[in-house]
Amino acid sequence: MFKTLIASLAFFLSAEVCNAQEKVFHFHEEGEKQWNYAQAYRSGNLLFISGTVGKGTMEEAVTRVYDTLGKTLEKYGLDFNHVVKEGLFTTNMLAMQNAQPIRQKYYGTHTPAATWVEIKRLFDEDSILEVELIAEIEKQ
Amino acid sequence: MFKTLIASLAFFLSAEVCNAQEKVFHFHEEGEKQWNYAQAYRSGNLLFISGTVGKGTMEEAVTRVYDTLGKTLEKYGLDFNHVVKEGLFTTNMLAMQNAQPIRQKYYGTHTPAATWVEIKRLFDEDSILEVELIAEIEKQ
Amino acid sequence: MFKTLIASLAFFLSAEVCNAQEKVFHFHEEGEKQWNYAQAYRSGNLLFISGTVGKGTMEEAVTRVYDTLGKTLEKYGLDFNHVVKEGLFTTNMLAMQNAQPIRQKYYGTHTPAATWVEIKRLFDEDSILEVELIAEIEKQ
Repeated sequence: MFKTLIASLAFFLSAEVCNAQEKVFHFHEEGEKQWNYAQAYRSGNLLFISGTVGKGTMEEAVTRVYDTLGKTLEKYGLDFNHVVKEGLFTTNMLAMQNAQPIRQKYYGTHTPAATWVEIKRLFDEDSILEVELIAEIEKQ
Repeated sequence: MFKTLIASLAFFLSAEVCNAQEKVFHFHEEGEKQWNYAQAYRSGNLLFISGTVGKGTMEEAVTRVYDTLGKTLEKYGLDFNHVVKEGLFTTNMLAMQNAQPIRQKYYGTHTPAATWVEIKRLFDEDSILEVELIAEIEKQ
Repeated sequence: MFKTLIASLAFFLSAEVCNAQEKVFHFHEEGEKQWNYAQAYRSGNLLFISGTVGKGTMEEAVTRVYDTLGKTLEKYGLDFNHVVKEGLFTTNMLAMQNAQPIRQKYYGTHTPAATWVEIKRLFDEDSILEVELIAEIEKQ
Protein backbone atom coordinates (compact mmCIF):
# COMPACT_ATOMS: atom_id res chain seq x y z
CA MET A 1 0.00 0.00 0.00
CA PHE A 2 2.72 2.44 1.05
CA LYS A 3 4.88 1.30 -1.86
CA THR A 4 2.00 1.90 -4.27
CA LEU A 5 1.56 5.39 -2.90
CA ILE A 6 5.25 6.14 -3.37
CA ALA A 7 5.16 4.71 -6.89
CA SER A 8 2.11 6.80 -7.78
CA LEU A 9 3.73 9.90 -6.35
CA ALA A 10 6.89 9.21 -8.32
CA PHE A 11 4.87 8.79 -11.51
CA PHE A 12 2.95 11.98 -10.84
CA LEU A 13 6.14 13.93 -10.21
CA SER A 14 7.88 12.52 -13.28
CA ALA A 15 4.97 13.75 -15.37
CA GLU A 16 5.50 17.23 -13.97
CA VAL A 17 9.24 17.58 -14.12
CA CYS A 18 11.87 15.59 -15.95
CA ASN A 19 14.69 14.32 -13.77
CA ALA A 20 16.61 17.44 -12.76
CA GLN A 21 19.69 15.43 -13.58
CA GLU A 22 18.74 14.88 -17.24
CA LYS A 23 21.37 16.38 -19.53
CA VAL A 24 19.11 17.12 -22.49
CA PHE A 25 15.56 18.41 -22.78
CA HIS A 26 13.68 18.70 -26.07
CA PHE A 27 10.34 20.40 -26.69
CA HIS A 28 10.12 19.28 -30.32
CA GLU A 29 12.51 16.37 -30.46
CA GLU A 30 12.43 15.73 -34.20
CA GLY A 31 12.84 19.35 -35.26
CA GLU A 32 15.51 20.07 -32.68
CA LYS A 33 17.54 16.98 -33.59
CA GLN A 34 17.36 17.94 -37.26
CA TRP A 35 19.07 21.24 -36.36
CA ASN A 36 21.37 19.66 -33.75
CA TYR A 37 20.19 21.57 -30.76
CA ALA A 38 18.24 20.99 -27.57
CA GLN A 39 15.84 23.37 -25.83
CA ALA A 40 18.02 22.86 -22.73
CA TYR A 41 21.32 21.15 -21.93
CA ARG A 42 22.68 20.67 -18.42
CA SER A 43 26.31 20.57 -17.32
CA GLY A 44 26.79 19.96 -13.61
CA ASN A 45 24.76 22.51 -11.71
CA LEU A 46 24.24 24.81 -14.71
CA LEU A 47 21.34 24.58 -17.14
CA PHE A 48 21.86 26.21 -20.55
CA ILE A 49 18.58 27.12 -22.29
CA SER A 50 18.70 27.73 -26.05
CA GLY A 51 17.71 31.02 -27.61
CA THR A 52 13.90 30.88 -27.59
CA VAL A 53 12.09 32.98 -30.22
CA GLY A 54 8.85 34.91 -30.54
CA LYS A 55 7.07 36.85 -33.30
CA GLY A 56 3.96 38.98 -33.86
CA THR A 57 3.65 42.13 -31.75
CA MET A 58 6.38 42.60 -29.15
CA GLU A 59 3.80 41.97 -26.41
CA GLU A 60 2.96 38.63 -28.04
CA ALA A 61 6.62 37.79 -28.58
CA VAL A 62 7.64 38.57 -24.98
CA THR A 63 4.73 36.53 -23.61
CA ARG A 64 5.49 33.59 -25.91
CA VAL A 65 9.23 33.63 -25.19
CA TYR A 66 9.02 33.87 -21.39
CA ASP A 67 6.13 31.36 -21.23
CA THR A 68 8.32 28.89 -23.09
CA LEU A 69 11.38 29.66 -20.95
CA GLY A 70 9.24 29.22 -17.82
CA LYS A 71 8.03 25.82 -19.03
CA THR A 72 11.61 24.80 -19.76
CA LEU A 73 12.74 25.81 -16.27
CA GLU A 74 9.76 23.90 -14.80
CA LYS A 75 10.91 20.70 -16.46
CA TYR A 76 13.96 20.85 -14.18
CA GLY A 77 11.91 21.89 -11.15
CA LEU A 78 13.14 25.49 -11.47
CA ASP A 79 11.63 28.94 -11.93
CA PHE A 80 12.90 32.38 -12.95
CA ASN A 81 14.51 32.86 -9.52
CA HIS A 82 17.11 30.32 -10.63
CA VAL A 83 18.21 32.37 -13.66
CA VAL A 84 21.85 33.44 -13.44
CA LYS A 85 22.33 35.08 -16.86
CA GLU A 86 20.00 36.29 -19.60
CA GLY A 87 21.08 37.01 -23.16
CA LEU A 88 18.44 38.95 -25.11
CA PHE A 89 18.54 39.58 -28.86
CA THR A 90 15.85 41.67 -30.53
CA THR A 91 15.28 43.35 -33.87
CA ASN A 92 13.53 46.26 -32.07
CA MET A 93 15.11 47.45 -28.83
CA LEU A 94 12.61 50.26 -28.19
CA ALA A 95 9.63 47.92 -28.49
CA MET A 96 11.35 45.47 -26.14
CA GLN A 97 11.99 48.22 -23.59
CA ASN A 98 8.31 49.18 -23.76
CA ALA A 99 7.39 45.55 -23.07
CA GLN A 100 9.53 45.33 -19.90
CA PRO A 101 6.42 45.36 -17.64
CA ILE A 102 5.38 42.04 -19.23
CA ARG A 103 8.87 40.55 -18.73
CA GLN A 104 8.84 41.76 -15.12
CA LYS A 105 5.79 39.60 -14.36
CA TYR A 106 7.98 36.55 -14.96
CA TYR A 107 11.02 37.69 -12.96
CA GLY A 108 9.20 39.40 -10.08
CA THR A 109 12.00 40.93 -8.00
CA HIS A 110 14.72 38.61 -9.34
CA THR A 111 17.72 40.26 -11.03
CA PRO A 112 20.01 38.01 -13.11
CA ALA A 113 23.04 39.28 -15.01
CA ALA A 114 21.78 40.35 -18.43
CA THR A 115 22.95 41.57 -21.84
CA TRP A 116 20.51 43.05 -24.35
CA VAL A 117 21.49 43.80 -27.97
CA GLU A 118 19.64 44.75 -31.15
CA ILE A 119 20.57 42.61 -34.14
CA LYS A 120 19.69 42.35 -37.84
CA ARG A 121 17.62 39.19 -37.86
CA LEU A 122 17.06 35.98 -35.91
CA PHE A 123 16.78 32.34 -36.99
CA ASP A 124 13.34 32.88 -38.50
CA GLU A 125 12.76 35.94 -40.67
CA ASP A 126 9.63 36.92 -38.75
CA SER A 127 11.04 36.48 -35.23
CA ILE A 128 11.60 39.72 -33.36
CA LEU A 129 12.87 38.43 -30.02
CA GLU A 130 15.22 35.66 -28.91
CA VAL A 131 16.19 35.05 -25.27
CA GLU A 132 18.73 32.52 -23.95
CA LEU A 133 19.24 31.71 -20.27
CA ILE A 134 21.75 30.14 -17.95
CA ALA A 135 20.08 28.87 -14.77
CA GLU A 136 21.44 27.01 -11.77
CA ILE A 137 19.81 23.78 -10.59
CA GLU A 138 20.63 24.43 -6.95
CA LYS A 139 21.37 27.94 -5.77
CA GLN A 140 24.99 27.97 -4.75
CA MET B 1 40.63 45.10 22.29
CA PHE B 2 41.55 42.31 19.89
CA LYS B 3 37.90 41.80 19.09
CA THR B 4 37.52 45.50 18.31
CA LEU B 5 40.48 45.34 15.98
CA ILE B 6 39.00 42.36 14.15
CA ALA B 7 35.63 44.08 13.93
CA SER B 8 37.25 47.23 12.54
CA LEU B 9 39.22 45.23 10.04
CA ALA B 10 36.08 43.37 8.97
CA PHE B 11 34.26 46.67 8.55
CA PHE B 12 37.14 48.13 6.57
CA LEU B 13 37.28 45.10 4.28
CA SER B 14 33.53 45.04 3.75
CA ALA B 15 33.75 48.63 2.58
CA GLU B 16 36.33 47.57 0.00
CA VAL B 17 34.83 44.36 -1.32
CA CYS B 18 31.43 42.81 -0.90
CA ASN B 19 31.47 39.25 0.40
CA ALA B 20 32.88 37.20 -2.47
CA GLN B 21 30.05 34.81 -1.71
CA GLU B 22 27.31 37.37 -2.40
CA LYS B 23 25.08 36.21 -5.24
CA VAL B 24 24.00 39.64 -6.46
CA PHE B 25 25.83 42.94 -6.87
CA HIS B 26 24.14 46.18 -7.91
CA PHE B 27 25.80 49.46 -8.86
CA HIS B 28 22.51 51.35 -9.18
CA GLU B 29 20.10 49.21 -7.21
CA GLU B 30 16.88 51.06 -8.05
CA GLY B 31 17.49 51.33 -11.78
CA GLU B 32 18.78 47.78 -12.11
CA LYS B 33 15.82 46.32 -10.18
CA GLN B 34 13.42 48.26 -12.39
CA TRP B 35 14.90 46.45 -15.39
CA ASN B 36 15.30 43.13 -13.57
CA TYR B 37 19.02 42.82 -13.85
CA ALA B 38 22.09 42.96 -11.65
CA GLN B 39 25.53 44.32 -12.52
CA ALA B 40 26.86 40.90 -11.43
CA TYR B 41 25.36 37.58 -10.39
CA ARG B 42 27.35 34.67 -8.96
CA SER B 43 26.67 30.97 -9.33
CA GLY B 44 29.12 28.75 -7.49
CA ASN B 45 32.61 29.71 -8.55
CA LEU B 46 31.50 31.69 -11.62
CA LEU B 47 30.69 35.40 -11.65
CA PHE B 48 28.50 36.63 -14.52
CA ILE B 49 28.88 40.35 -15.20
CA SER B 50 26.13 42.07 -17.20
CA GLY B 51 26.80 43.80 -20.48
CA THR B 52 28.33 47.12 -19.44
CA VAL B 53 27.94 50.03 -21.86
CA GLY B 54 29.90 53.10 -22.93
CA LYS B 55 29.31 56.04 -25.28
CA GLY B 56 31.13 59.12 -26.65
CA THR B 57 34.33 58.49 -28.58
CA MET B 58 35.47 54.87 -28.66
CA GLU B 59 38.43 55.81 -26.44
CA GLU B 60 35.99 57.19 -23.87
CA ALA B 61 33.66 54.21 -24.21
CA VAL B 62 36.45 51.62 -23.79
CA THR B 63 37.81 53.45 -20.76
CA ARG B 64 34.36 53.80 -19.18
CA VAL B 65 33.40 50.16 -19.85
CA TYR B 66 36.60 48.54 -18.57
CA ASP B 67 36.79 50.91 -15.58
CA THR B 68 33.29 49.78 -14.61
CA LEU B 69 34.08 46.11 -15.22
CA GLY B 70 37.23 46.47 -13.12
CA LYS B 71 35.25 48.00 -10.25
CA THR B 72 32.73 45.17 -10.47
CA LEU B 73 35.48 42.55 -10.32
CA GLU B 74 37.01 44.39 -7.35
CA LYS B 75 33.78 44.08 -5.39
CA TYR B 76 34.39 40.31 -5.39
CA GLY B 77 38.10 40.70 -4.68
CA LEU B 78 38.96 39.90 -8.30
CA ASP B 79 40.79 41.55 -11.19
CA PHE B 80 41.02 41.05 -14.96
CA ASN B 81 43.27 38.02 -14.47
CA HIS B 82 40.16 36.17 -13.26
CA VAL B 83 38.24 36.73 -16.51
CA VAL B 84 37.39 33.47 -18.27
CA LYS B 85 35.22 34.75 -21.14
CA GLU B 86 34.57 38.14 -22.70
CA GLY B 87 31.60 38.91 -24.96
CA LEU B 88 32.05 42.22 -26.79
CA PHE B 89 29.32 43.96 -28.80
CA THR B 90 30.05 47.18 -30.65
CA THR B 91 28.40 49.35 -33.29
CA ASN B 92 31.85 50.12 -34.77
CA MET B 93 34.29 47.22 -34.98
CA LEU B 94 37.10 49.20 -36.64
CA ALA B 95 37.03 51.89 -33.95
CA MET B 96 37.09 49.15 -31.29
CA GLN B 97 40.07 47.49 -32.93
CA ASN B 98 41.89 50.81 -32.96
CA ALA B 99 41.19 51.16 -29.23
CA GLN B 100 42.71 47.76 -28.35
CA PRO B 101 45.81 49.43 -26.78
CA ILE B 102 43.49 50.97 -24.16
CA ARG B 103 41.76 47.61 -23.49
CA GLN B 104 45.19 45.97 -23.18
CA LYS B 105 46.07 48.21 -20.25
CA TYR B 106 43.32 46.47 -18.28
CA TYR B 107 44.15 42.88 -19.26
CA GLY B 108 47.95 43.16 -19.23
CA THR B 109 49.13 39.76 -20.50
CA HIS B 110 45.91 37.94 -19.59
CA THR B 111 44.06 36.18 -22.43
CA PRO B 112 40.46 35.07 -21.78
CA ALA B 113 38.27 33.37 -24.37
CA ALA B 114 36.56 36.16 -26.32
CA THR B 115 33.93 36.80 -28.98
CA TRP B 116 33.61 40.19 -30.66
CA VAL B 117 30.70 41.09 -32.94
CA GLU B 118 29.37 44.27 -34.56
CA ILE B 119 25.67 44.81 -34.01
CA LYS B 120 22.96 47.36 -34.97
CA ARG B 121 22.41 49.05 -31.66
CA LEU B 122 22.73 48.52 -27.91
CA PHE B 123 20.33 49.15 -25.01
CA ASP B 124 20.81 52.91 -25.24
CA GLU B 125 20.71 54.55 -28.65
CA ASP B 126 23.97 56.41 -28.04
CA SER B 127 25.99 53.48 -26.64
CA ILE B 128 28.69 52.21 -28.97
CA LEU B 129 30.23 49.45 -26.85
CA GLU B 130 28.91 46.75 -24.51
CA VAL B 131 31.09 44.15 -22.82
CA GLU B 132 29.94 41.21 -20.68
CA LEU B 133 32.29 38.98 -18.68
CA ILE B 134 32.37 35.60 -17.00
CA ALA B 135 35.01 35.50 -14.25
CA GLU B 136 35.99 32.81 -11.78
CA ILE B 137 36.13 33.56 -8.06
CA GLU B 138 38.96 31.12 -7.44
CA LYS B 139 41.18 30.02 -10.32
CA GLN B 140 40.48 26.35 -10.83
CA MET C 1 61.76 -0.90 -19.08
CA PHE C 2 58.21 -0.53 -17.89
CA LYS C 3 58.99 2.97 -16.69
CA THR C 4 60.39 3.84 -20.10
CA LEU C 5 57.27 2.56 -21.78
CA ILE C 6 55.10 4.68 -19.51
CA ALA C 7 57.29 7.71 -20.14
CA SER C 8 57.13 7.19 -23.91
CA LEU C 9 53.39 6.77 -23.76
CA ALA C 10 53.06 9.94 -21.69
CA PHE C 11 55.19 11.82 -24.21
CA PHE C 12 53.15 10.47 -27.11
CA LEU C 13 49.89 11.47 -25.46
CA SER C 14 51.15 14.92 -24.55
CA ALA C 15 51.98 15.49 -28.19
CA GLU C 16 48.39 14.66 -29.10
CA VAL C 17 46.48 16.55 -26.46
CA CYS C 18 47.52 19.31 -24.13
CA ASN C 19 46.95 18.57 -20.48
CA ALA C 20 43.17 18.66 -20.09
CA GLN C 21 43.87 20.71 -16.98
CA GLU C 22 45.61 23.53 -18.89
CA LYS C 23 43.78 26.79 -18.40
CA VAL C 24 44.79 28.44 -21.66
CA PHE C 25 45.20 27.14 -25.20
CA HIS C 26 46.53 29.25 -28.08
CA PHE C 27 46.56 28.36 -31.76
CA HIS C 28 48.51 31.45 -32.79
CA GLU C 29 50.12 32.56 -29.56
CA GLU C 30 51.61 35.84 -30.74
CA GLY C 31 48.52 37.10 -32.54
CA GLU C 32 46.16 36.01 -29.81
CA LYS C 33 48.24 37.63 -27.07
CA GLN C 34 48.38 40.87 -29.07
CA TRP C 35 44.56 40.94 -28.95
CA ASN C 36 44.34 39.60 -25.38
CA TYR C 37 42.44 36.45 -26.10
CA ALA C 38 42.99 32.72 -26.15
CA GLN C 39 41.48 30.17 -28.51
CA ALA C 40 40.26 28.37 -25.37
CA TYR C 41 40.20 29.07 -21.64
CA ARG C 42 39.21 26.53 -18.99
CA SER C 43 37.52 27.19 -15.65
CA GLY C 44 36.95 24.08 -13.57
CA ASN C 45 35.10 21.56 -15.67
CA LEU C 46 34.03 24.08 -18.34
CA LEU C 47 36.02 24.94 -21.46
CA PHE C 48 35.21 28.27 -23.11
CA ILE C 49 36.19 28.38 -26.80
CA SER C 50 36.51 31.81 -28.43
CA GLY C 51 34.40 32.85 -31.38
CA THR C 52 36.11 31.13 -34.33
CA VAL C 53 35.65 32.73 -37.74
CA GLY C 54 35.37 31.63 -41.37
CA LYS C 55 35.10 33.37 -44.75
CA GLY C 56 34.65 32.55 -48.46
CA THR C 57 31.50 30.62 -49.40
CA MET C 58 29.32 29.55 -46.46
CA GLU C 59 30.27 25.92 -47.17
CA GLU C 60 33.95 26.88 -46.85
CA ALA C 61 33.30 28.99 -43.76
CA VAL C 62 31.33 26.25 -41.96
CA THR C 63 33.98 23.66 -42.77
CA ARG C 64 36.81 25.95 -41.63
CA VAL C 65 35.06 26.99 -38.41
CA TYR C 66 34.00 23.50 -37.25
CA ASP C 67 37.36 21.98 -38.28
CA THR C 68 39.06 24.55 -36.07
CA LEU C 69 36.61 24.03 -33.20
CA GLY C 70 37.12 20.26 -33.48
CA LYS C 71 40.90 20.68 -33.29
CA THR C 72 40.49 22.91 -30.25
CA LEU C 73 38.29 20.34 -28.49
CA GLU C 74 40.83 17.62 -29.39
CA LYS C 75 43.59 19.52 -27.56
CA TYR C 76 41.64 18.85 -24.36
CA GLY C 77 40.83 15.26 -25.32
CA LEU C 78 37.24 16.23 -26.21
CA ASP C 79 34.96 16.06 -29.23
CA PHE C 80 31.65 17.67 -30.28
CA ASN C 81 29.75 15.34 -27.92
CA HIS C 82 31.16 17.42 -25.06
CA VAL C 83 29.65 20.69 -26.33
CA VAL C 84 27.14 22.16 -23.89
CA LYS C 85 26.33 25.49 -25.59
CA GLU C 86 26.91 26.93 -29.06
CA GLY C 87 26.68 30.62 -29.89
CA LEU C 88 26.55 31.24 -33.65
CA PHE C 89 26.87 34.64 -35.29
CA THR C 90 26.55 34.99 -39.06
CA THR C 91 26.12 37.78 -41.60
CA ASN C 92 23.86 35.49 -43.68
CA MET C 93 21.38 33.35 -41.77
CA LEU C 94 19.79 31.75 -44.84
CA ALA C 95 23.14 30.62 -46.20
CA MET C 96 24.01 29.19 -42.77
CA GLN C 97 20.73 27.30 -42.61
CA ASN C 98 21.45 25.83 -46.04
CA ALA C 99 24.85 24.68 -44.77
CA GLN C 100 23.37 22.81 -41.77
CA PRO C 101 24.10 19.39 -43.40
CA ILE C 102 27.82 20.24 -43.23
CA ARG C 103 27.54 21.31 -39.56
CA GLN C 104 25.64 18.10 -38.81
CA LYS C 105 28.60 16.00 -39.90
CA TYR C 106 30.51 17.40 -36.92
CA TYR C 107 27.78 17.02 -34.30
CA GLY C 108 26.35 13.69 -35.46
CA THR C 109 23.34 13.14 -33.19
CA HIS C 110 24.57 15.48 -30.45
CA THR C 111 22.30 18.39 -29.51
CA PRO C 112 23.81 21.21 -27.39
CA ALA C 113 21.89 24.30 -26.33
CA ALA C 114 22.32 26.83 -29.15
CA THR C 115 21.60 30.43 -30.10
CA TRP C 116 21.92 31.64 -33.69
CA VAL C 117 21.73 35.32 -34.65
CA GLU C 118 22.43 37.37 -37.78
CA ILE C 119 24.64 40.36 -37.17
CA LYS C 120 26.14 43.27 -39.14
CA ARG C 121 29.76 42.23 -39.25
CA LEU C 122 32.35 40.14 -37.44
CA PHE C 123 35.91 40.87 -36.31
CA ASP C 124 37.24 40.69 -39.88
CA GLU C 125 35.30 42.46 -42.60
CA ASP C 126 35.28 39.38 -44.83
CA SER C 127 34.23 36.86 -42.17
CA ILE C 128 30.70 35.55 -42.57
CA LEU C 129 30.50 33.09 -39.68
CA GLU C 130 31.69 33.05 -36.07
CA VAL C 131 30.95 30.22 -33.62
CA GLU C 132 31.79 30.10 -29.91
CA LEU C 133 31.40 27.01 -27.72
CA ILE C 134 31.18 26.02 -24.08
CA ALA C 135 32.20 22.40 -23.60
CA GLU C 136 32.55 20.26 -20.49
CA ILE C 137 35.77 18.38 -19.77
CA GLU C 138 33.98 15.52 -18.03
CA LYS C 139 30.29 14.92 -18.70
CA GLN C 140 28.53 15.64 -15.45
